[in-house]
Amino acid sequence: MSKVGVVVVGLHGAVATTLVAGVALMVKGLAPRIGMVTEKGEARISESITTLLSFAPLEDLVFGGWDVRFDNVYQGAVHHKVLPPHVLSQVEGELSAVRAWPAVFGRRYAENVVGDNAVKAKTFRDEIAAITRDIETFKEKSGLDRVVMVNLASTEAYLEAGPVHATLEAFEAGLDRDDPAISPSMRYFYAALKKGMAYANFTPSLTHVPALAELAAKTQAPYAGMDGKTGQTLLKTALAAMMRVRRLHIEGWYSTNVLGNSDGAVLASPESNKTKVLSKAAVLDSIVGYPVENHQVHIHYYKPRGDAKEAWDNIDIVGFAGVPMQIKVNFLCQDSVLAAPLVIDLVRLLDVAKRTGDFGPQRQLSLFFKSPHTIEDGDAVHDLFKQEQMLLQWVKQRAAKLASNGTRTIEAEATA
Amino acid sequence: MSKVGVVVVGLHGAVATTLVAGVALMVKGLAPRIGMVTEKGEARISESITTLLSFAPLEDLVFGGWDVRFDNVYQGAVHHKVLPPHVLSQVEGELSAVRAWPAVFGRRYAENVVGDNAVKAKTFRDEIAAITRDIETFKEKSGLDRVVMVNLASTEAYLEAGPVHATLEAFEAGLDRDDPAISPSMRYFYAALKKGMAYANFTPSLTHVPALAELAAKTQAPYAGMDGKTGQTLLKTALAAMMRVRRLHIEGWYSTNVLGNSDGAVLASPESNKTKVLSKAAVLDSIVGYPVENHQVHIHYYKPRGDAKEAWDNIDIVGFAGVPMQIKVNFLCQDSVLAAPLVIDLVRLLDVAKRTGDFGPQRQLSLFFKSPHTIEDGDAVHDLFKQEQMLLQWVKQRAAKLASNGTRTIEAEATA
Amino acid sequence: MSKVGVVVVGLHGAVATTLVAGVALMVKGLAPRIGMVTEKGEARISESITTLLSFAPLEDLVFGGWDVRFDNVYQGAVHHKVLPPHVLSQVEGELSAVRAWPAVFGRRYAENVVGDNAVKAKTFRDEIAAITRDIETFKEKSGLDRVVMVNLASTEAYLEAGPVHATLEAFEAGLDRDDPAISPSMRYFYAALKKGMAYANFTPSLTHVPALAELAAKTQAPYAGMDGKTGQTLLKTALAAMMRVRRLHIEGWYSTNVLGNSDGAVLASPESNKTKVLSKAAVLDSIVGYPVENHQVHIHYYKPRGDAKEAWDNIDIVGFAGVPMQIKVNFLCQDSVLAAPLVIDLVRLLDVAKRTGDFGPQRQLSLFFKSPHTIEDGDAVHDLFKQEQMLLQWVKQRAAKLASNGTRTIEAEATA
Amino acid sequence: MSKVGVVVVGLHGAVATTLVAGVALMVKGLAPRIGMVTEKGEARISESITTLLSFAPLEDLVFGGWDVRFDNVYQGAVHHKVLPPHVLSQVEGELSAVRAWPAVFGRRYAENVVGDNAVKAKTFRDEIAAITRDIETFKEKSGLDRVVMVNLASTEAYLEAGPVHATLEAFEAGLDRDDPAISPSMRYFYAALKKGMAYANFTPSLTHVPALAELAAKTQAPYAGMDGKTGQTLLKTALAAMMRVRRLHIEGWYSTNVLGNSDGAVLASPESNKTKVLSKAAVLDSIVGYPVENHQVHIHYYKPRGDAKEAWDNIDIVGFAGVPMQIKVNFLCQDSVLAAPLVIDLVRLLDVAKRTGDFGPQRQLSLFFKSPHTIEDGDAVHDLFKQEQMLLQWVKQRAAKLASNGTRTIEAEATA
Repeated sequence: MSKVGVVVVGLHGAVATTLVAGVALMVKGLAPRIGMVTEKGEARISESITTLLSFAPLEDLVFGGWDVRFDNVYQGAVHHKVLPPHVLSQVEGELSAVRAWPAVFGRRYAENVVGDNAVKAKTFRDEIAAITRDIETFKEKSGLDRVVMVNLASTEAYLEAGPVHATLEAFEAGLDRDDPAISPSMRYFYAALKKGMAYANFTPSLTHVPALAELAAKTQAPYAGMDGKTGQTLLKTALAAMMRVRRLHIEGWYSTNVLGNSDGAVLASPESNKTKVLSKAAVLDSIVGYPVENHQVHIHYYKPRGDAKEAWDNIDIVGFAGVPMQIKVNFLCQDSVLAAPLVIDLVRLLDVAKRTGDFGPQRQLSLFFKSPHTIEDGDAVHDLFKQEQMLLQWVKQRAAKLASNGTRTIEAEATA
Repeated sequence: MSKVGVVVVGLHGAVATTLVAGVALMVKGLAPRIGMVTEKGEARISESITTLLSFAPLEDLVFGGWDVRFDNVYQGAVHHKVLPPHVLSQVEGELSAVRAWPAVFGRRYAENVVGDNAVKAKTFRDEIAAITRDIETFKEKSGLDRVVMVNLASTEAYLEAGPVHATLEAFEAGLDRDDPAISPSMRYFYAALKKGMAYANFTPSLTHVPALAELAAKTQAPYAGMDGKTGQTLLKTALAAMMRVRRLHIEGWYSTNVLGNSDGAVLASPESNKTKVLSKAAVLDSIVGYPVENHQVHIHYYKPRGDAKEAWDNIDIVGFAGVPMQIKVNFLCQDSVLAAPLVIDLVRLLDVAKRTGDFGPQRQLSLFFKSPHTIEDGDAVHDLFKQEQMLLQWVKQRAAKLASNGTRTIEAEATA
Repeated sequence: MSKVGVVVVGLHGAVATTLVAGVALMVKGLAPRIGMVTEKGEARISESITTLLSFAPLEDLVFGGWDVRFDNVYQGAVHHKVLPPHVLSQVEGELSAVRAWPAVFGRRYAENVVGDNAVKAKTFRDEIAAITRDIETFKEKSGLDRVVMVNLASTEAYLEAGPVHATLEAFEAGLDRDDPAISPSMRYFYAALKKGMAYANFTPSLTHVPALAELAAKTQAPYAGMDGKTGQTLLKTALAAMMRVRRLHIEGWYSTNVLGNSDGAVLASPESNKTKVLSKAAVLDSIVGYPVENHQVHIHYYKPRGDAKEAWDNIDIVGFAGVPMQIKVNFLCQDSVLAAPLVIDLVRLLDVAKRTGDFGPQRQLSLFFKSPHTIEDGDAVHDLFKQEQMLLQWVKQRAAKLASNGTRTIEAEATA
Repeated sequence: MSKVGVVVVGLHGAVATTLVAGVALMVKGLAPRIGMVTEKGEARISESITTLLSFAPLEDLVFGGWDVRFDNVYQGAVHHKVLPPHVLSQVEGELSAVRAWPAVFGRRYAENVVGDNAVKAKTFRDEIAAITRDIETFKEKSGLDRVVMVNLASTEAYLEAGPVHATLEAFEAGLDRDDPAISPSMRYFYAALKKGMAYANFTPSLTHVPALAELAAKTQAPYAGMDGKTGQTLLKTALAAMMRVRRLHIEGWYSTNVLGNSDGAVLASPESNKTKVLSKAAVLDSIVGYPVENHQVHIHYYKPRGDAKEAWDNIDIVGFAGVPMQIKVNFLCQDSVLAAPLVIDLVRLLDVAKRTGDFGPQRQLSLFFKSPHTIEDGDAVHDLFKQEQMLLQWVKQRAAKLASNGTRTIEAEATA
């Protein structure tokens, strides 16, 4: 018995429903096992992490979670139109059976989100108790060994860390008085940390505050974030690495994105847009080693694109003898399709982290994020290939540790 | 006194004239020092090889070489139109002073090349003697410490290694009877190896044959090749690495190139085209770890593009749950501008290899080539970022070796 | 009672099944009425031809035809994957009911086509009799007023007109001896012309030969062709017209196409490819009024694209003071989706031509073809907007004629 | 003797200097005569307007004008970097000889423009008198028959027509009190109209107000505007016409522009940007005949692009049976190079208009503008090919008129 529970904040959203549907399809052999570094695939790659370590099989992942909208995962998936109807119908039974629990929800933080399956609770403390009960019931009913929490909810409104987030004491006092500066995402994170659970924040919402870092250290909970690195930023951190390798000078980088899903609608508000844009812009300078002067990132809501996302990048480079050259990239992608497999990787790798005694921000998981959590500010690595090296290094060390401990002992330690 | 000579086969071609012009411009402070990993630049990159090792300064590079066309480097540069007239005029004096020696030349190997500055020699042995004399005179007159040879000539007609290339004995017997299977490129390489000189083959012409590998071992000469990795293949080996990192399945990759310079005209002949295409196609499978089923590479001569080169790539990927996505890349580049700085890197790094006692194929220089020379077949690494790691590793070791030897000893050993 | 029959050569192919499915969807109100100039749409365009003339309503079109493959239109449509499964299932009944009659088929002309529903006939004359019987039975059973024949079969192997095609007498003598130079397409066209039916050749296969022009004149049958103008050529004839309007000089035009359907597979053979490429290349010079020096068209079979077709065009233009500029166009289209509505337009407009007494090549229908049939060689108009003017002019005249005749008279004349 | 003077507001700007340089190059035979419909070129186009009418030869155009910046046209041209240095140096003499007169200038209308060659005048009336004197002196000294004024100045700040612009009386009263609502552009236009001169407004600045239309009628002056149709909008009005011809439904059109010249800097201010964007957005609906729901136009100042301008368009279309398709266009153009020849066409055609007695807004010149002036609101034609028809029609009529009058008479009438 070694089932791993995955509890998702935003279970009926585009990413989560694609995730649950994809796992169901793969388990039934109806879809290829593509997109995860933690899954053995067709590729014969030396130093692949799956040759070093075994991970929880897809068959053993059990999904639960919270949402305010839709009756079940199937209805959400049909609405979001990421996978086509004839594909979804093959796993309609599996998806209909997964139904979200009532969610903690704050109008202030998600003004464009509509839904009524909200938790009935009078205080933040009551909400946290409800979250905890949901997890415990889920764990017991599903016969789970360990549970990992993943935040896949809509991006919350912009928030800066304040005094209430500075220490655990201040934070808990804030909880006692329902301080509005404690966002729904933080309440979920707090609930997870209290139980010592592993946690991943796949959204750009603020959760990595000193108070909760303090709690994670106390309960020895590992966590990772933030803002999944999927389309344009993924490409940017690969292409910028190429420029670095060849010492081609980036004179300018003009990036524009169009997307037409509910994420896009959220980003149509100037405030959210600015937050997202800032997060995307930061990656470049750290990779190439100098401030790129003309770097622009634009995001526009464009309805015809639907859940698909399109990025157009123009890169102006200066080469030898000062000669200008240009690269244009047009990426026609599906945001949720790029995101879902990363969630599986994160769950499995955080599960290993927990089992091998790691806690706090898991820098080795930077590979999956636009703005990786680190212990020290300014310490983030953005170069895709350096991130890969970091992860590989960590997997090697943990594989060695697990091997010397003996698997049985580790399993016994697993307490999540 | 530590001047390094660079003798170029094809001194008046587009790459070589851009190289000589670029160095002159940089030395005069008229162009930024961009595009070389062996040159300290503005970028603050951890583990940069320039923080580990010092290289021959640009000011100490002296250029010579052979060509059949044009009176001098300035005339070649004006003809090739890589750099604009008002830029070239700033270094007209420097460029006019560099004039190619008469070249070894075989009509059979370069049917579209026109020129009359050919070496007057009746036999291959006489030609090789002429090459050797040119180098010796150059070294003496210019007061050079060491000389590196670089092949930047037009791509030769396709050739497979045969019995005459199998052993040094057979090769030298072939030289004695002017065997037409011994191409001009091989005669230059032979001359360089006899003197124990470092050598780089930046073209796809065949030079790395067993006979000459044997000679290199005997004279302890390091060499590297082949086919400089500049535009589309550079991009391909970076993007394919990204796909590998994310385990996105490449369902197809359609690449087309247009170029309008004399290289392009050469590639308009089906035979040369096929050779080039095969060389470009090989890189993908080794990076992603499985055979990519629908990989096409097309090259077309298209006059309006001139020396500029344009690549258009369409990449079909399959992601999570089997969902298809597309990436299109349009690279507007200048082939010679991408190539020239790599030649400087190769000269400097081969110079270090020679000084630290390395000889034979220099696998750590794979970063610069489409089809890197290795000792064992099938041992080539194509992933741009793994190539970078390999080079960095080697530089670290050589830096340590040079440090423990003391610089003085090494300088004394330098015999080129 | 005024039903119009459409008999299709290649009824189970990608274009024809899309056509039949699209009409069924539109009639049921499940798809918008888009893509036809003969259908009243949302657009308020002055001088629209639908304001001048009424056409046979979609509800009155009845489809029949011949094919060697698949049991019925539904099976063909599912196989070709132009429309998604959940869309096709909405008209499964309608599509399953349309089943092709055994087809005339020549291995020599369609080597990659597989199928066994071939007409059992010993001689060409017997085949033609079978075609004629099929049409007559169809007309009677379906209660049709008039019937139009459309050729949507696979492109036949390249063929040049020879002596047997020179006169009707020679042609009929050829039929008598089963001359292999009389292709299947010609036998269908002959059958149609004998009955005085209107006919459209949407493929690049050769049918417009003097012998059959002679027959058309005799039986007063109008016809149009050839090679439907759908994706890249459509764009080219619009963009070239823009260049003409602005007198921008086209220095070069590089076009490449990838497609992955059975059409693409046919075009992978060098002979068919060359034919297609020549047909595509001709259009440019006639629009801009001078020979474009660097015009290249490439077509490649690329499996991942399926029925979708992708074109990439690079256009080099020279503007005022000799300054070069570039336009790049990437067209992601569905070939059959662009083609099917043109077939409806052709059927309706040829029906008007027949009713108003036009016969022979219908030059006013040039708008729909890559290589429009004309009476005199070199008389073809390729400019999309001049073609539109030509059609509009003709519609105006025919509308006037129909109005003066009175509709009743015309209906009486209809004999197809 | 039949020289035509061209007086330019903004003589030292990018468009004007390119214009003057281009004419000088063409006259000296150093550049091809490309980009003008009024110039006989290599193209053999039926119904070309140059086969119908003769225009003032390039050799007879004489340039003058006003500007606040730079000493002469050569210095402006060098600064703007539209033409490369080695091209400009061929006409340095000609360009240095053309020096702007002190300009009328209002800080309020051009906040980012810097320069000190402003006219010394205390009142608007004095400024207008200075403009008039400049023109008269120019005409006399250069021995000119006729003079046309063209506005090529920087885009002025956004302005709506108010009471002072409603009648000529109100306007002249406004002039008397130096009403700030009368922009510099309007003062130039007023000066031109008072003399009955032909005038073109190539900028989006407001000049076509009722008061000045009234004056034009009185003095029988023809004029045209506004906002030259050069890059992206040119393409848009051609491609939208193609969609109309094929009745493809435009579901969305996403346009983004980057440019890095001083025009771009002006457009970086939100107010100017909005004005420009609105002007660009209007064209689509009128061409296709229905409101395009998802039409976005973005303009960004992006320094690395310099005077070159780059447009990227994504067009989502819906075809037959509701199937979506996409077109992407990337236009790498030079704004001034596209604009300059249109100015020559406008000068010549306005000269014909003046000579044949046309006055008021010249709707037949719509071909050259983003927002063509018309007599009635909502009467603008945007379709590039309908605009071409309109112009051709007018030229035919005017050619007939000129022929019946006899050329001599017309020349006698010319009074500029």
